[in-house]
Amino acid sequence: MKLRVDLLPHGNYPDVVLVIDALRATTTAVAYLERGAQALLLTSTPEVALALRGTRENLLLAGERGGLPIPGFDFGNSPAEAGTQNFAGKTVVMNTTNGTGAAHVAAQSGKHVLLAALTNAHAAARRARALASEGIAIVCAGTDGRVGLEDVYTAGVLAEYLLAMGDFTLDDGARIALTVRRGGGDPAEALSGSDHGLHLATLGLAEDVQLAAGLSTSTVVPTLERGEDVPEGTLRFVAG
Amino acid sequence: MKLRVDLLPHGNYPDVVLVIDALRATTTAVAYLERGAQALLLTSTPEVALALRGTRENLLLAGERGGLPIPGFDFGNSPAEAGTQNFAGKTVVMNTTNGTGAAHVAAQSGKHVLLAALTNAHAAARRARALASEGIAIVCAGTDGRVGLEDVYTAGVLAEYLLAMGDFTLDDGARIALTVRRGGGDPAEALSGSDHGLHLATLGLAEDVQLAAGLSTSTVVPTLERGEDVPEGTLRFVAG
Repeated sequence: MKLRVDLLPHGNYPDVVLVIDALRATTTAVAYLERGAQALLLTSTPEVALALRGTRENLLLAGERGGLPIPGFDFGNSPAEAGTQNFAGKTVVMNTTNGTGAAHVAAQSGKHVLLAALTNAHAAARRARALASEGIAIVCAGTDGRVGLEDVYTAGVLAEYLLAMGDFTLDDGARIALTVRRGGGDPAEALSGSDHGLHLATLGLAEDVQLAAGLSTSTVVPTLERGEDVPEGTLRFVAG
Repeated sequence: MKLRVDLLPHGNYPDVVLVIDALRATTTAVAYLERGAQALLLTSTPEVALALRGTRENLLLAGERGGLPIPGFDFGNSPAEAGTQNFAGKTVVMNTTNGTGAAHVAAQSGKHVLLAALTNAHAAARRARALASEGIAIVCAGTDGRVGLEDVYTAGVLAEYLLAMGDFTLDDGARIALTVRRGGGDPAEALSGSDHGLHLATLGLAEDVQLAAGLSTSTVVPTLERGEDVPEGTLRFVAG
């Protein structure tokens, strides 16, 4: 089976796609579901998120631009913040600079779309392996169209887990990610030393970076659930 | 000084840009100048190259699509082929799938644009260091919009040389490239094991891959020379 790593989203995916935005969207998505959220709605734009307010009960809006909360939203994009709340029965509408867009690219062609982070890496790799019949693509969201070290490192961790579960033929992206994983230090070093990790620290969000570096601390895998009742411009993810 | 590595071309460059398409455009460009070519004209499209034929004396057309020579062109994009010819007094018009486009992106914002490969890596790094006052960007051409291991590895070699010449602050791309260089084996292993290296071998072009892996075998650095007499849609590079 083929294992492909896109260091930036490209589209044209095989049956299973793992989307990574380790700092912080996919890490935060895992945290919301860990804290009881019944579903996540990832929107294509902030406007789609704002337009959903009031249309359904128990909706909360979460997101960021440039690392900071979006005006009019209830939450930022922070695993630390998520960890202090109870989201039981809530649907969290999420829009972020890079991660939610990458999920939309993945959903255009991928059949099974999963959100992955270091925090759920082992569970996400197991789920991907169980679902895949054609191949697995790991998609790094990056930051504003540029490759992010934190995502490539996380992709390498996922690739390492997958290689322990079976044979794969690798592409250049997978080779690069594995090399970055093996030569990039431990998760906390890799994430805190990345450009985006350094940026978040200057915003006082170093705790988020620390939480995002927690390796396989969760078994929740946000899983795309398609359906006619999903609002236009959104993707619904549930705990899998 | 800042050292930035773009794993794919992005634009908005500092004063010095090193463009890499190790398999094979920038390696071949070095070879043409090594073999006496007086200039290279890198065109934006194959059509621009074909339209130049007959407009000037001593023009030769070279290029590829999908690794194979372009119909109507005199040469492919092969350092092995270039090494058997004498290009004294000739201007070689080049168009390739990825490398010439990356040079055009670089030239839109970069002041000094140099072509780099493993074969001229040390000379290219020295030239870049001597020219730079703001910063240095290393730009990987990639393959059809996807990151290529051979270019990232070559970027890591250039970054290693540059770090030996002075202090730089690194971005994520530079960190990834250095890790790939240090963990990616020797140049021949890295290039022959890359997706594009494997593809070229299936086309019977393994000798090109082997030549491209020759580390700092040349001191020629193709250097962008701007001027009013440069044909529209082309960039002129001369030996520097």
